[in-house]
Amino acid sequence: MSGMEEVSNKQVLARDYINGNPKESDMYLSTEATIKLKVPEGSNAVLVKNLYLSCDPFTRGTKKPTPDMITFFAPNSPVVGFGVGRVLDSGHPEFKKGDLVWGMTKWEEYTLITKTEGLFKIHHTDVPLSYYTGILGMPGMTAYAGFYEICSPKKGEYVFISSAFGAVGQLVGQLAKLMGCYVVGSAGSKEKVETLKNKFGFDEAFNYKEEKDLDAALKRYFPQGIDIYFENVGGKMLDAVLLNMRLHGRIAVCGMISQYDLDEPEGVRNLMYLVFKRIRMQGFFVFDHYHLYPKFLETLLPYIREGKIDYVEHIAEGLENAPAALVGLFSGLHVGKSLVLVASE
Amino acid sequence: MSGMEEVSNKQVLARDYINGNPKESDMYLSTEATIKLKVPEGSNAVLVKNLYLSCDPFTRGTKKPTPDMITFFAPNSPVVGFGVGRVLDSGHPEFKKGDLVWGMTKWEEYTLITKTEGLFKIHHTDVPLSYYTGILGMPGMTAYAGFYEICSPKKGEYVFISSAFGAVGQLVGQLAKLMGCYVVGSAGSKEKVETLKNKFGFDEAFNYKEEKDLDAALKRYFPQGIDIYFENVGGKMLDAVLLNMRLHGRIAVCGMISQYDLDEPEGVRNLMYLVFKRIRMQGFFVFDHYHLYPKFLETLLPYIREGKIDYVEHIAEGLENAPAALVGLFSGLHVGKSLVLVASE
Repeated sequence: MSGMEEVSNKQVLARDYINGNPKESDMYLSTEATIKLKVPEGSNAVLVKNLYLSCDPFTRGTKKPTPDMITFFAPNSPVVGFGVGRVLDSGHPEFKKGDLVWGMTKWEEYTLITKTEGLFKIHHTDVPLSYYTGILGMPGMTAYAGFYEICSPKKGEYVFISSAFGAVGQLVGQLAKLMGCYVVGSAGSKEKVETLKNKFGFDEAFNYKEEKDLDAALKRYFPQGIDIYFENVGGKMLDAVLLNMRLHGRIAVCGMISQYDLDEPEGVRNLMYLVFKRIRMQGFFVFDHYHLYPKFLETLLPYIREGKIDYVEHIAEGLENAPAALVGLFSGLHVGKSLVLVASE
Repeated sequence: MSGMEEVSNKQVLARDYINGNPKESDMYLSTEATIKLKVPEGSNAVLVKNLYLSCDPFTRGTKKPTPDMITFFAPNSPVVGFGVGRVLDSGHPEFKKGDLVWGMTKWEEYTLITKTEGLFKIHHTDVPLSYYTGILGMPGMTAYAGFYEICSPKKGEYVFISSAFGAVGQLVGQLAKLMGCYVVGSAGSKEKVETLKNKFGFDEAFNYKEEKDLDAALKRYFPQGIDIYFENVGGKMLDAVLLNMRLHGRIAVCGMISQYDLDEPEGVRNLMYLVFKRIRMQGFFVFDHYHLYPKFLETLLPYIREGKIDYVEHIAEGLENAPAALVGLFSGLHVGKSLVLVASE
C-alpha cells in the first residue's frame, strides 16, 4: 500500500503535433499507463488526482510556434491543459497532501506536476470547485489583469470587446459594466449576440459576420468613439477599431485569433492613429500577473457570491468525452465555459 | 507713435494647400501686409517680433489630414511654424513687453499670437537663443518626453532609433547614452551614419537604404534584442523591429514618416509579437507633455552647458531665404537643425 504500488492511469494522448484546431481523431484514449501515487524521493514535484480539466481556445497547434508557446499536443503524450486537482503527495513545501490546487496539468487521471510555479492552492470552496478552471482560474485572471492592469479603466468609459463571448471576453464585459462603463461586444452568431446582451448585461453586441463594413458598425455603436479595446481578434477588426479610438485610448492585446491560421498575418494599416490619438497598445500574458491572484479573489469572490457576475459552464463527464468537448469548443457548439469532470473523488 | 500706426510686415505666404513635401514654388515673399504693433483692446493675445523661425520635418502637407493636424500651408496665408520672438505688446497676464518667448508662430516679421497655450517664456539666455527652436524647444521636448515618459528606460538597455539623424532622434540617442544604454540608429546616408557614430556617440548606426533585409540588419546590431524602439518610420522597419523586441519591450511611436505619402499605408504584420513579448507600444504628441518643460530644462541645460550633449545648427539668414531652408531640410541638404534668422533685434 502507501502508494508504492502502481495504479492504472487513464490518459487522453495526442497522436502527433497538430496544426490549427484539434479534431477528435487527433487524440485517443489509452489505459496502458500506470503511475506510482508518490513523488520521487528528493523531488519537489506535486502528485495530483485530476478532478476537472479545462477546454481552452488556446489548446491548439500553430504553424509558427514561438519560444514562449506551450506545446499542448505532442506525439503519444497526454494533452496539456489547465485543471483542478487534489494533492495526493507532495515534495514541495507549499503544497501538502489533501490540498486542492489549480494550474497546468495533463489530460489523465493522475499527474506528477514538476513545474509548480503556476500552481495555486484553493482556499475557498463555498463556490463550485469547477470555477477554478474558468472564472476563478486562468481565464478569470486573464480578464482581470487585462482589464484592470492593462486597460486602466475609468467609470463612464466606452469599452469594446472582440470575441466577447469567450470565457475571458464575457468576464471583461461584466467587470466593465460593474465599473460603470458602456460595453459593446462582437461575436460570431446571433445566439451569442443575444446572450451577451440579455444574460451578461452588455449594452450592445453585434455579429461581426453580418457586418460588411466594420468601421461603419463601430461608428454605429460608438458614435463618441472607443476608450478601451480588449483585443482578441486582430487583423481587419483591429484596423477598424484604430479608426474609432478616442484620445488617450488603450488597447489590451490578449490575442489575435483571426490571424493564427493564416500563412501570413494580415497587415494592419492604421497604426498612425496610435500617434493621432496618443493610444497605448499593450500585449500581455496572464502569467506575468499571477502575483495579483489574492487581489483578484478579493474582487471576484464577492461578485460571484452576490450573483453580480453571471457564469455558465458546460461540463462533459469522463476523460473519454474530453476530446469531443475540446473539439466542440472550436465549433462553438456549447454555451458556457467548457470543461471535463474527470473524478468526483 | 506708441504702436498705433501700422508698420510693414514682410511675410512668407503659401500659394495653396500642399500635398507632401513643400517646393520653393509653393511659397512666395510678400511685402504688402502691414500690422499694428499693439494687441487689440480687450484681447489676451501676444504680439511678437519673430527672431528665429524653425524648419521642421512635419512642416508639410498630407493627403489625409486628421482633425488633430495643424495646417501649415493655406492659400495666401503665412506659413505656420515654431519660432523664438520678443514680446512687443501683450494682453495676456503671463507675458509682458520685453519677454522672450518660443512657440507656434508664423513666417513673418511680426505675429499676433492668439493661441497662447503653447507659448513658453524664455528665462535662460546664457545658451544661444536659437536653441529654443530645437534642442530647448519643441523637438527637444519631444525627445525628452518620448524617451523618459514613454520609453521608461533603464541603464544598460538596448535602444534602437529610426530616422535617428533628425533633431529628435539625435537627442534621444544622446539621452540614452547618458543613461548608460546601448544605442543604435538608422539613417538614410553614409554621412549621417558616420556623424551619428562619431559626433553624437551612438554605439552603432546603419544606412537602411543599404540593407535588403532589415530583420537581418537588426539581428546583427542587436543579437540580444531590442528593449526600446523609438519609432519615427513605420511600415517595414516596424515589422522588422517587432521580430527583434525583447520581453517587456517598449515602442514609443513619435511618427511614421515612411507612410505619409503612400495612398494606403503599408500593413504591419507582426503585431502578435506585442503579445509574445508583452510589448507596450504607445503613440504620443509633445503637446501632452508640455507641463514637464521646467523639469526638461533642469535636465537639458546642465548637459548643454557642460558640453555633454552635442548640437549642430544650420542657420539661414533672412525671411527671404526661409523657403529654400525648409525645402533643403527635406532633401537632406544640411547637417544640423535647420532654422531661419529673421531679426537680430
